[in-house]
Amino acid sequence: MFTLFGRPRKHIVVPKLKPRAAKTALNVNRVSLDELTPDLPRYLGQAAYLQLSNLETISGAISSSPSTAAKVALSRVSQTSLAKLNGLLAEIERGGDSPAELMEYFAAPIERFRDSTRGADWYETVITSYITAGMLTDFFTALAGGLPAGPRERIVELLVGNDPSAIVIEQLRDAIDADHQLASRLALWARRLVGDTLLVARSALSVPAGTAPDEARLEPIFTELIAAHTRRMDVLGLTA
Amino acid sequence: MFTLFGRPRKHIVVPKLKPRAAKTALNVNRVSLDELTPDLPRYLGQAAYLQLSNLETISGAISSSPSTAAKVALSRVSQTSLAKLNGLLAEIERGGDSPAELMEYFAAPIERFRDSTRGADWYETVITSYITAGMLTDFFTALAGGLPAGPRERIVELLVGNDPSAIVIEQLRDAIDADHQLASRLALWARRLVGDTLLVARSALSVPAGTAPDEARLEPIFTELIAAHTRRMDVLGLTA
Repeated sequence: MFTLFGRPRKHIVVPKLKPRAAKTALNVNRVSLDELTPDLPRYLGQAAYLQLSNLETISGAISSSPSTAAKVALSRVSQTSLAKLNGLLAEIERGGDSPAELMEYFAAPIERFRDSTRGADWYETVITSYITAGMLTDFFTALAGGLPAGPRERIVELLVGNDPSAIVIEQLRDAIDADHQLASRLALWARRLVGDTLLVARSALSVPAGTAPDEARLEPIFTELIAAHTRRMDVLGLTA
Repeated sequence: MFTLFGRPRKHIVVPKLKPRAAKTALNVNRVSLDELTPDLPRYLGQAAYLQLSNLETISGAISSSPSTAAKVALSRVSQTSLAKLNGLLAEIERGGDSPAELMEYFAAPIERFRDSTRGADWYETVITSYITAGMLTDFFTALAGGLPAGPRERIVELLVGNDPSAIVIEQLRDAIDADHQLASRLALWARRLVGDTLLVARSALSVPAGTAPDEARLEPIFTELIAAHTRRMDVLGLTA
């Protein structure tokens, strides 16, 4: 059986940061995705700008938090995002490049992505970070399979090892359980996010100039991304 | 000679993070301030909420950054703020308290403080973080002198060891040098910030209920805070 993201997403209910990445996170279908991995600078520039954008989304959620407790919890979420961003920036500098220069190339499309996924309130903003960063972390973890061994290992550890899901779930779960209208609104919002996020993921694939990507090859990748997304929604009690 | 903040603020021009706290940062005038130090939970709750507020200010500046390079630089500033916040939260938990509960008490006045110090653009927002967090870090470092030895040492190391000044100076200095109108506007803005920040500092002092603080004792404290502020402005080429 084909599995792009080998690490099964368990239904986490204990509000506790998970220990570092399970090794199984590396069980991605390399054959399928490796040839579509962009070169390292492009990978890093895009991954770093996406993480910066995620950091901004979380920051917005901190500001619109309904309580001090929520602010504190989200400051811990922003820590996981900053850890990933800092690791990616360090990886860029290790390669002798300037972070801002590599990232600049992706500024316009990613700023548009963030604009189009801006939540209307605190709940939607938190869901935006949870869903979009979750999917993109899965995707960039899988895509890292095609990178050279050294960066690949560091990057995968970085991406998988700073998972804020447990904190987000703790913040949202009770409110969702208690309020069907909220659950329904957030489910719709998340469905809306998936399309935009898959387009960003797709734009990260390296497809030879002048050719169309092999749709038959891409399909299982996106099927797996959506399956992981569904598990992420399940944990919140939301319909994907 | 009386000196509240023994560590002389050098005119940093090298855009480089300073190594960890110089020991001399502890040379505060303990005699004068120790008796005004609040109890540890109150100290921590207020310091943590102020840091959370600073993190929000920096986040706002990331969003309004004029360039990707500025965003990246400010993400590093937010890392220094998060390091301080995380350390303070850990210290609260070490004492068996809930961070959100201790911080909640300070939410309303600090949110008002942040509202009243909200910059009109990126430059003002960056200056706000630099000036207000700089003064309050000085102040809480000095105030820590009256805390029990264990927390005191950890807190002082935390506050002094995560100084974002060099990054901020690198971001602002050239623009200020090149634009006299900007320099004049920012100097005015910073002067406006000082008053509000000193009031916040003053509100952190523990004064026995029903008594007025001893103004003669407070004066040198605030004189030193302002002197440190003037040095901070000097580094940017701004008139204090």
